[in-house]
Amino acid sequence: MYMSWQTYLSDHRERFIQELVDFVSIPSISALPQHKADVRRAAEWLTARLSSAGMQNATLINTAGHPAVYADWLNAPGKPTILLYGHYDVQPVDPLDQWVTPPFQPQIRDGKLYGRGASDDKGNIIATVQTLEAILRTAGQFQVNVKCIFEGEEEIGSPTLGPAIAEHRDLLACDHIFSMDGLQWGENAAGILVGLKGMAKLQINVYGPSTDQHSGLFGATLQNPATALAHILAALRSPEGKVLVDGFYDSVRPLTAQDRAHLAAVPFDPAAVERTTGVPALSGEPGYSPLERMWARPTLDVNGIWGGFQGAGSKTIIPATAHAKITCRLVADQHPDQIADLIEAHIQRNTPSGVRVTVEKSSGAYPFLMSPDHPSNLIVRDVLTTLYGSAPYYVRVGGSVPVYAVFERELGVQPATMGFTLEDEQLHAPNEFWRLESFDKCQLAYGLLLHKF
Amino acid sequence: MYMSWQTYLSDHRERFIQELVDFVSIPSISALPQHKADVRRAAEWLTARLSSAGMQNATLINTAGHPAVYADWLNAPGKPTILLYGHYDVQPVDPLDQWVTPPFQPQIRDGKLYGRGASDDKGNIIATVQTLEAILRTAGQFQVNVKCIFEGEEEIGSPTLGPAIAEHRDLLACDHIFSMDGLQWGENAAGILVGLKGMAKLQINVYGPSTDQHSGLFGATLQNPATALAHILAALRSPEGKVLVDGFYDSVRPLTAQDRAHLAAVPFDPAAVERTTGVPALSGEPGYSPLERMWARPTLDVNGIWGGFQGAGSKTIIPATAHAKITCRLVADQHPDQIADLIEAHIQRNTPSGVRVTVEKSSGAYPFLMSPDHPSNLIVRDVLTTLYGSAPYYVRVGGSVPVYAVFERELGVQPATMGFTLEDEQLHAPNEFWRLESFDKCQLAYGLLLHKF
Repeated sequence: MYMSWQTYLSDHRERFIQELVDFVSIPSISALPQHKADVRRAAEWLTARLSSAGMQNATLINTAGHPAVYADWLNAPGKPTILLYGHYDVQPVDPLDQWVTPPFQPQIRDGKLYGRGASDDKGNIIATVQTLEAILRTAGQFQVNVKCIFEGEEEIGSPTLGPAIAEHRDLLACDHIFSMDGLQWGENAAGILVGLKGMAKLQINVYGPSTDQHSGLFGATLQNPATALAHILAALRSPEGKVLVDGFYDSVRPLTAQDRAHLAAVPFDPAAVERTTGVPALSGEPGYSPLERMWARPTLDVNGIWGGFQGAGSKTIIPATAHAKITCRLVADQHPDQIADLIEAHIQRNTPSGVRVTVEKSSGAYPFLMSPDHPSNLIVRDVLTTLYGSAPYYVRVGGSVPVYAVFERELGVQPATMGFTLEDEQLHAPNEFWRLESFDKCQLAYGLLLHKF
Repeated sequence: MYMSWQTYLSDHRERFIQELVDFVSIPSISALPQHKADVRRAAEWLTARLSSAGMQNATLINTAGHPAVYADWLNAPGKPTILLYGHYDVQPVDPLDQWVTPPFQPQIRDGKLYGRGASDDKGNIIATVQTLEAILRTAGQFQVNVKCIFEGEEEIGSPTLGPAIAEHRDLLACDHIFSMDGLQWGENAAGILVGLKGMAKLQINVYGPSTDQHSGLFGATLQNPATALAHILAALRSPEGKVLVDGFYDSVRPLTAQDRAHLAAVPFDPAAVERTTGVPALSGEPGYSPLERMWARPTLDVNGIWGGFQGAGSKTIIPATAHAKITCRLVADQHPDQIADLIEAHIQRNTPSGVRVTVEKSSGAYPFLMSPDHPSNLIVRDVLTTLYGSAPYYVRVGGSVPVYAVFERELGVQPATMGFTLEDEQLHAPNEFWRLESFDKCQLAYGLLLHKF
């Protein structure tokens, strides 16, 4: 007698929630060396769970750091292959004393499961694996080939995932990638991630006299490194927030009419940003709305400045040096190394005489931009529209997530995102939780997704 | 039988040098509370020494801090009154391990007496007091009325001298003031101090978001306080070093032809400043020579800047705040409070939107400018020309010495300077020394000065 996968999911719901509790109980904190064995234990637990779900070839992929978990089901010849991505590692738990219940002893209160990693990203993983089980146990097969890759280093920037994927390029080859490490817009509104910013990083060092000098004796005849730094920084970004670096915007893909329409459709209240951040007024590149700037325009920020005397009272010196740390958030198609080079050249052109300047460039990150009409996004849109009863917003994030560029570069496939985390769920903070309603939504969503093929 | 005061000085030279040793042995460090009693002991020693020299009414003038020492000889009715100024307090001695012999156990090596305060300023004081004794013991009188005021707080900025002088305005009333706290140009070249710079002090605080914010989430839509500070600082001073504050130069007394001639006469090697300070090139306000800038033009210097992340690596934030400390060195007739107000107004006019700025103004110091042809300077010029066999240079100093403005304000008399310290004598540093040749010169100079009346 045929049983639907949905019925299977609801019949086993109690066991499935217990599995979420078990999974969250493993303190797989990737950042802390003392949890290395716990991270591996979580990977092994997940490998076994994929096997028990009916997935095949479940195995650890060892990397230079924490292992990744792989499994597949490739019994749909002639059909496409999808790769499901998530991460089973979690953030540290400090400050521990602010947790109402211990982070690795999950507890359900008011329909929410509290524990580190519940929302980001273990809940999404286990719910999806359970859906795979539900379909295999009921229908006996998928209409598509399925591969899973779950990494253990997302919370530390996926440092070893790139080489691991490159090494297993054939194993991971696929037509679509769906990442379950993602947010929805709200409890009743869906979102599809189409853009992430990249990054360029550098430090400016301005050297004047070999030691601090008496401002009375030499103030009139030596360049002041702090003033020179001020002129350099002022030459990088206008008072309004437009980046003044020659060539900086040359490779920025302009917003299309569709992009602008998608952005304008998103509910966004600038006054709420002013309230949240406590600033007197928003500020930024002229000619763009705040949301366009935040999601689709590149930025240049001074993250820190220092030089000379910072104590109480006064010390009448010309500082020997002054420094600034700069990061840029990049958008397609800016290249992090090229942008760093443009900035360095601009700095050298705008350095006042009487000082020496060096620029230290750090490795950056590529921006990510995916068409809303990408076939994978069309599938996600259909699923989310069915699930929420309304079309999703097209969302971008001003931050950088290295793994997206890794998939694009190494497998030639842009990942679509469908995760069921919500922004208020205390990610990376004490008392992280996941709504059990999201648990159900995630299971249903991935079931619907698999049936789109 | 009449003995000349010069003969008296040479006859008693051994005793007089021993007195210098005794005076330097008292650790009268005004900056350190644990030496408060030592400072007083030095004041009492000096009071007794003035009495034994034949001066009258020798007494301590108690202040809110360390006492000043007063004495007089007023038996020349109808003649002018001169006030002799010096300071008996000394700088701290750190780092102690760099002293060849202990700072308060003076030792003579190669015709130099080593010890803290030997050159700055105890040597000049004791030599002058001994000259007073020599004249009183030989001629029995001066041709002028003589007052002495020796303070114990010069090394901490004379904080209580102003009120003490105001309180004793009648006691200290005089026609000329001669300060023995001063430098000569070199062993074989004299200098007369005609200018000191004043000071205005302030701190700029730039406030953006209420806490550091994620540069990815908010970088495009919040003003960056560090960038805002850079624009503020860039608006205060040109890349070359011209101060851009509206009205800043309005009350600056222009250089006269005589000033320019006096400055041009001074031997000055810009390349030596480059070598000493290690800068690639000198820099400063266009239209003035380096020495004109250093001695006669006002400046604005950033003494310190800070804000945001200063550690290793990167932290991708918009800093909540950024700060800068500023001091200006002022020239006649700039008023420190007015200049601070002009700067504050200029900052407010040049603050980018999206941040809040406060300016903290500290109490400043007045500039000092004395005519080369002031009667007191004409006397000093005659004495130094006799002593060195050539005319002195007219010298200014970029630093500030508060006591000059105090005398001018409270007694209505500009002090002329005649001291016999040389710049290489490790003032404020380990192994301070005074040339015994300068000891002899100082005695002779003040003897000649007293005979000018």
